[in-house]
Amino acid sequence: MSLFVEKYGGTSVGSIERINVVADHIADSHADGNRLVIVVSAMSGETNRLVALADEINPARSQRESDVLLSTGEQVTIALLSMALHKRGIGAKSYTGTQVRIVTDSVHGKARILSIDSTRIKADLHENNVVVVAGFQGVDEHGNITTLGRGGSDTTAVALAAALEADECKIFTDVDGVYSADPRIVPDARRLDRITVEEMLELASQGAKVLQTRSVEFAGKYRVPLRVLSSFKEGPGTLITYEEVTMEQPLISGIAHNADEAKLTIRGVPDTPGIAYRILGPIADAHINVDMIVQNVSEDNTTDFTFTVHRNDFENAKAKLEIIAAETGASDVIGDNAIAKISVVGVGMKSHAGIASTMFKALSDESINIQMISTSEIKVSIVVDDKYMELAVRALHKAFSFDNLSTNEELSTITQ
Amino acid sequence: MSLFVEKYGGTSVGSIERINVVADHIADSHADGNRLVIVVSAMSGETNRLVALADEINPARSQRESDVLLSTGEQVTIALLSMALHKRGIGAKSYTGTQVRIVTDSVHGKARILSIDSTRIKADLHENNVVVVAGFQGVDEHGNITTLGRGGSDTTAVALAAALEADECKIFTDVDGVYSADPRIVPDARRLDRITVEEMLELASQGAKVLQTRSVEFAGKYRVPLRVLSSFKEGPGTLITYEEVTMEQPLISGIAHNADEAKLTIRGVPDTPGIAYRILGPIADAHINVDMIVQNVSEDNTTDFTFTVHRNDFENAKAKLEIIAAETGASDVIGDNAIAKISVVGVGMKSHAGIASTMFKALSDESINIQMISTSEIKVSIVVDDKYMELAVRALHKAFSFDNLSTNEELSTITQ
Repeated sequence: MSLFVEKYGGTSVGSIERINVVADHIADSHADGNRLVIVVSAMSGETNRLVALADEINPARSQRESDVLLSTGEQVTIALLSMALHKRGIGAKSYTGTQVRIVTDSVHGKARILSIDSTRIKADLHENNVVVVAGFQGVDEHGNITTLGRGGSDTTAVALAAALEADECKIFTDVDGVYSADPRIVPDARRLDRITVEEMLELASQGAKVLQTRSVEFAGKYRVPLRVLSSFKEGPGTLITYEEVTMEQPLISGIAHNADEAKLTIRGVPDTPGIAYRILGPIADAHINVDMIVQNVSEDNTTDFTFTVHRNDFENAKAKLEIIAAETGASDVIGDNAIAKISVVGVGMKSHAGIASTMFKALSDESINIQMISTSEIKVSIVVDDKYMELAVRALHKAFSFDNLSTNEELSTITQ
Repeated sequence: MSLFVEKYGGTSVGSIERINVVADHIADSHADGNRLVIVVSAMSGETNRLVALADEINPARSQRESDVLLSTGEQVTIALLSMALHKRGIGAKSYTGTQVRIVTDSVHGKARILSIDSTRIKADLHENNVVVVAGFQGVDEHGNITTLGRGGSDTTAVALAAALEADECKIFTDVDGVYSADPRIVPDARRLDRITVEEMLELASQGAKVLQTRSVEFAGKYRVPLRVLSSFKEGPGTLITYEEVTMEQPLISGIAHNADEAKLTIRGVPDTPGIAYRILGPIADAHINVDMIVQNVSEDNTTDFTFTVHRNDFENAKAKLEIIAAETGASDVIGDNAIAKISVVGVGMKSHAGIASTMFKALSDESINIQMISTSEIKVSIVVDDKYMELAVRALHKAFSFDNLSTNEELSTITQ
């Protein structure tokens, strides 16, 4: 008898028909003797419908009220899925984030989970009930409804799996696993059977939309066995592993791309100690996440400082940066939101030279100019003009010879 | 500076445009210095949309999950209305029933309010915020979401007004007050400026759809000044009063009708002490409300026992009654759900004879057969075949000469 936390995303529960398919699937697993906690998102389209209503009322709405509004989406799904399970003779009980209770901080729209009370869930599981929990939402210490931000249902599932010490956390989605690149861009991209948590983190944060970064971080922190698989077709999916890195690891696991970012540069800023904090402190205070940061060697005691933010935060970050520029005596602020970031990720690259040069050659061969470069131990990321994004992804996939391989294990045999 | 609790029903907040109209109205009242607690229903159509989804999944759904589902309707409205108020520069905070907290018993779908914690609301009012509360919903002692049943938003408003000792509870709806009869049936029915709580109770329970019975009971119990008025046009509406009945009262306040009931008769039941309890006990245990009850004098130690229930409960009540019939040795059970109930209501009738006879003559003149009669101090109700309902209402309105009057105060001058 295993305990599984299973998360079904918006497209997986996007219609009554789909909810019935999910209920059948859960019924089969329950009949096999598994104990099940199900986390669901809002039915696909529902969140957009609610956002449209709010936009019509007040585009500059408060995040607190936005959370009250959006959290209804998952609440509808938990009720409907529980009803569908009842119809199949299965005891099922639904819980909102408030009811569980999933306690978060008070940063509405981007709240972080602080604790989960698993008492009620354990009691229900003990009574052989399937527990259905609303993803994406929680409650702060004052009883205000919070949301974890889009994709937060993954985080809910992983956090519940950690709290309940589940045997596996299964993220059911509309793709059947993690791929070596986006199959819509690279038609012969391959599904990976396994991927290390470090690689998955880089892929997730670099724009592979399969899993939300925070959910992978959470999984890594608590070593939750995490599997991504399709709710539309059978298959083993991709398992995120916590194994030691060995020479058997593939050199490169995947290529991620992301056109959701924008680039900001503050130029001619005095290069004094603490300048990075003076620039990024106010940005962080505004709850704007910064991704890539590049600072070049200084000339004449001034430097150019460039970073990327989500495109939604571009105007806000630019306004903040202009204030900072005036305060610090910087020359000016420039920005560009027509960029794309592409990352090559793989734990195997730690022990191999030449990844970056292979990458730059492939892009050079296609005459694609590189605007920013950022590296970590298991990743090389570049920023290019967004019109070259698809071309760059295909060129890199070909350069790293994914195209010629049938399983990712063989990747470790590639040499540069 | 007055404290008002204002309730806006589904049609009053049925679209973004309507929500903006309501927000304007609230902004004006707030600018006048009033402290305001606003109770809202789900946007019209939303509850039906949710019920249709649930019906598609599982027509025999659990009431617990149904409440989880339906309570999202008001939650959407509180968020949108709060956003609309923010746009007008007004501090506003939304609360679900769980958040307030409005504690109810655990009878899902028909829960009764046990207590209200007004601490947070008072703190918000003190900070000059408008408080926006989801009607129709509460939370039981175990943290389960409950609903008060359709129309329960009125009860929420009255209960909040009682808890907060509000100066007035205003029920904004799509009609501009309580009428002497349904204006759709009797075109020259008149709006009443005032009505006693006893009359309002009889009218509400007898089918005048303006206010839900329970909300009027609640108002009466705590003597909450209650006013019904239109959110679509200006006007004083109808005030429900708690004055002593005097000769100045109108003889008849109004005529109510109701085609939502069904009639059940258990025939040839042994007329022993306690038989009424043996029949109605199991019906009450099933949470089926019984309205009219008629038992005739017995013959041969057996009697016929007739009562009415809501049409939705007809099949369930009939099945229960057949079991009771078998147990008690009654001869049979018959039922009819094509009935209408019509009631003539007025505190003035206490001191006047002849109301019933005027009523019966008016119906006799139209050849309408009376199936059941039930009377109280301020009401005479009859049951007729439902196809005669409109004709009967018009005949009675004419018989009691509402047609010739311009204000209801003059009604007291009518003699039989």
